[in-house]
Amino acid sequence: MLYKQIGEEVRNYIDQLTKPRGSLGRLEELAIEVAKMTGERFPRVTPPGVLVFAADHGIAKEGVSAYPQEVTAQMVLNFARGGAAINVFSKQIDATFAVVDVGVAVDIHEESVINEKVAYGTNNFAYEKAMTKEDAERAVQVGYRQGNRMIDSGIRCLIVGEMGIGNTTTASALLAAMSGRHVAELVGKGTGIHNEAVKHKRAVIERALMLHQPKASDPIDLLTKIGGLEIAAMAGAMIAAAERRIPILLDGFICTVAALVATRFDEDVVHYMIASHESVEPGHRIALQLLNKEPLVRLHMRLGEGSGAAVAFPIVNMAMAMLRMATFSSGNVSTGSDHHE
Amino acid sequence: MLYKQIGEEVRNYIDQLTKPRGSLGRLEELAIEVAKMTGERFPRVTPPGVLVFAADHGIAKEGVSAYPQEVTAQMVLNFARGGAAINVFSKQIDATFAVVDVGVAVDIHEESVINEKVAYGTNNFAYEKAMTKEDAERAVQVGYRQGNRMIDSGIRCLIVGEMGIGNTTTASALLAAMSGRHVAELVGKGTGIHNEAVKHKRAVIERALMLHQPKASDPIDLLTKIGGLEIAAMAGAMIAAAERRIPILLDGFICTVAALVATRFDEDVVHYMIASHESVEPGHRIALQLLNKEPLVRLHMRLGEGSGAAVAFPIVNMAMAMLRMATFSSGNVSTGSDHHE
Repeated sequence: MLYKQIGEEVRNYIDQLTKPRGSLGRLEELAIEVAKMTGERFPRVTPPGVLVFAADHGIAKEGVSAYPQEVTAQMVLNFARGGAAINVFSKQIDATFAVVDVGVAVDIHEESVINEKVAYGTNNFAYEKAMTKEDAERAVQVGYRQGNRMIDSGIRCLIVGEMGIGNTTTASALLAAMSGRHVAELVGKGTGIHNEAVKHKRAVIERALMLHQPKASDPIDLLTKIGGLEIAAMAGAMIAAAERRIPILLDGFICTVAALVATRFDEDVVHYMIASHESVEPGHRIALQLLNKEPLVRLHMRLGEGSGAAVAFPIVNMAMAMLRMATFSSGNVSTGSDHHE
Repeated sequence: MLYKQIGEEVRNYIDQLTKPRGSLGRLEELAIEVAKMTGERFPRVTPPGVLVFAADHGIAKEGVSAYPQEVTAQMVLNFARGGAAINVFSKQIDATFAVVDVGVAVDIHEESVINEKVAYGTNNFAYEKAMTKEDAERAVQVGYRQGNRMIDSGIRCLIVGEMGIGNTTTASALLAAMSGRHVAELVGKGTGIHNEAVKHKRAVIERALMLHQPKASDPIDLLTKIGGLEIAAMAGAMIAAAERRIPILLDGFICTVAALVATRFDEDVVHYMIASHESVEPGHRIALQLLNKEPLVRLHMRLGEGSGAAVAFPIVNMAMAMLRMATFSSGNVSTGSDHHE
């Protein structure tokens, strides 16, 4: 599926650039990875697209978040007006930006927000299935459609963000089910919530997993029982990007869990993913390890929205720019005895 | 010297932005740091300036580098023609770029290269002093003058790069003298040179330190005995930036050693420094620790030229952009019970 031969050609070409061999470290690997994904010897990742999916979570009723549920809708309006972190970061990287209501609990009256509402939030999975099988499938298709739509508009790298009060709990439940790891390993106090709140959050997740017994290998079963509408849509958007050979720059914990869900639909999607940052959410490291991805930066962020990916995007872009350096022959520079200093 | 009060105001303001408190991690700290440096509540770091100093090193005659000495001059021409890594990265960040010949061993016939040649390279400090006291002072003044010149042109963040075959050996000698650490800790095979070459490089440095006994606290003595002309100029440019309250984004090993030299002239300069990356050169971590700086990224780079700083610059710029987010009140977003999720 990857263009391995082109990757090798780019690797050899990089060794001809006017710098000691290997001296740009991770940037060299990034250029090779993106060449393999896209099949281009001089790939570009601009403009990037930032696609934010928003939805509410019934599990928020269990008091797992410090924010009231109405913040989801308020933040969607904030996205529409350009006031959120992902807005200012998207502007910095000249990204095409869109926000999609895939399941906010109230109607959003704002023209710039794409209305693809599948439901008014999920059910509280502490007691019942989060959604119907049909809604899970519909939410994935929303993401797939919106991902394709953004790619049609010309983006060359996809960042998938999210907003949904309570969605770290949903993502933690999904990760516990997919990884088989103890909930206590995934839900820490990394986010800064109180010890008591952490214990409560863990207990809610453990009981939900006992109740639903989701199948780790079946993404629709996972999403139906303990999923989130925006997480389903994010997975759908990633599947679209992989099909179109567009690199996916992963964001934080929720996004990386959605990435794992996407690989349950199609394991090849993983080859199109680049990990941007590692957040302080303890499950994030585990989710990245399951994808076998090393993050570009560790900046102690834990915001979501796609913000970490947007912050790391310039590094990916720098790697592509590197390929426009002079070579030893074009630049009239002597090569070293063993290319090292 | 720092505007601590303004730093506190910015810290409080950041807590009003529409995001969970502390959720942008290191970016929040960066914004506060730059506010303290500049005294501005909404500081900006654009445009950045990239100032590359080039010089040759007599110690290169000891066979400590895999590259022949003429590569210094060849790379200076490559900088002038836009073919080097630092050129393509500077373009990515819309930097003002300049390259200064402060001591290349041959004449550089290229109009765009600023000619401030103090000498045709240093002497081989394995046997004699690297330079005269007067030349060390002149080289620092070149950097000070060129730093001020670039700041006069309007840059808001200074990146200081270097080119000089053999200069990791010079920088390692300086760091060993300033830190009192064993040479073996500072010079590893991190760069990939052979074991034999590493042993030889260490032995050359150890003998030179025995011969010259440089005074760790006296920057002119250090530079005179075991210094480099570009390292002296880099220190001078940093002193200028600190005086003008312009943040200095440090590059890799050589640059960080120059930063340590700058602090030997004036310890307050350290307050204007931000560490960009940590290179694979083993001494870099030690140099950063001595400055008490935590790098923004670790990308296994070891190129110099200012390249690591240029790659990390967008992260610093993102931190400034963050301050343009909506606040909870301007964005009509409810605050959480304890600002955490």
